[in-house]
Amino acid sequence: MKYTFLVVILLLQCSPKTNFSTMKENSLYGLHGKLVAKAGQGATLAEILLEAAAMMQAAKGCRFYVVSTEEGRPEEVWITEVWDTKEDHDRSLSDPKVRALISKALPLLEGNPQKGQELQVLGGAGL
Amino acid sequence: MKYTFLVVILLLQCSPKTNFSTMKENSLYGLHGKLVAKAGQGATLAEILLEAAAMMQAAKGCRFYVVSTEEGRPEEVWITEVWDTKEDHDRSLSDPKVRALISKALPLLEGNPQKGQELQVLGGAGL
Repeated sequence: MKYTFLVVILLLQCSPKTNFSTMKENSLYGLHGKLVAKAGQGATLAEILLEAAAMMQAAKGCRFYVVSTEEGRPEEVWITEVWDTKEDHDRSLSDPKVRALISKALPLLEGNPQKGQELQVLGGAGL
Repeated sequence: MKYTFLVVILLLQCSPKTNFSTMKENSLYGLHGKLVAKAGQGATLAEILLEAAAMMQAAKGCRFYVVSTEEGRPEEVWITEVWDTKEDHDRSLSDPKVRALISKALPLLEGNPQKGQELQVLGGAGL
């Protein structure tokens, strides 16, 4: 139940209201958002997300999946992702190994994940 | 004069108040921020930034430099960067070719660039 809730939230992060017909052709799908851990759990959450990042290296359509923190905000962990398509991103969440990591992360979270910033990635270096 | 102003602003984007002694060891330097173009100039600004991105491909310490937009906000252009160090990022701004692009972008901007979000990039896929 709790797991389903988190998956729904993670999917909601990717704004269901987006009108894909108006998205720029040939752009990649980007997502920049954070998860907030309970007090003292930020480092553990970051470790779990780095495990997820290691998995994403082999995921179809994943160009970039990095885990970051901000100075002075140890409980906030940022995830910045670039995928070929939104569908590739969404599909990655149904991988059983990713699900296992989500279950591991769930008890560490403070409140609900906020909706991430969706980006139409036009191009760049390092993709 | 105007050029110097923009370089100063771009450097300020990287918060001079950061205390580097407290930054996590071995983390990379990330920056996520936007430039806002005058009405109707967003696509031209994005093209200039994609030219900059192409240059960054060869820049020392640049892992990732991508240019994005957000649905429904055509004048806002986001730049997401990952560098080995903040110094590598700052040095890139003094490259004469990058300076030339800055001069080209300057007349297109609406107001002053906002300070970007600095990130301590812990790791991930695609770096």
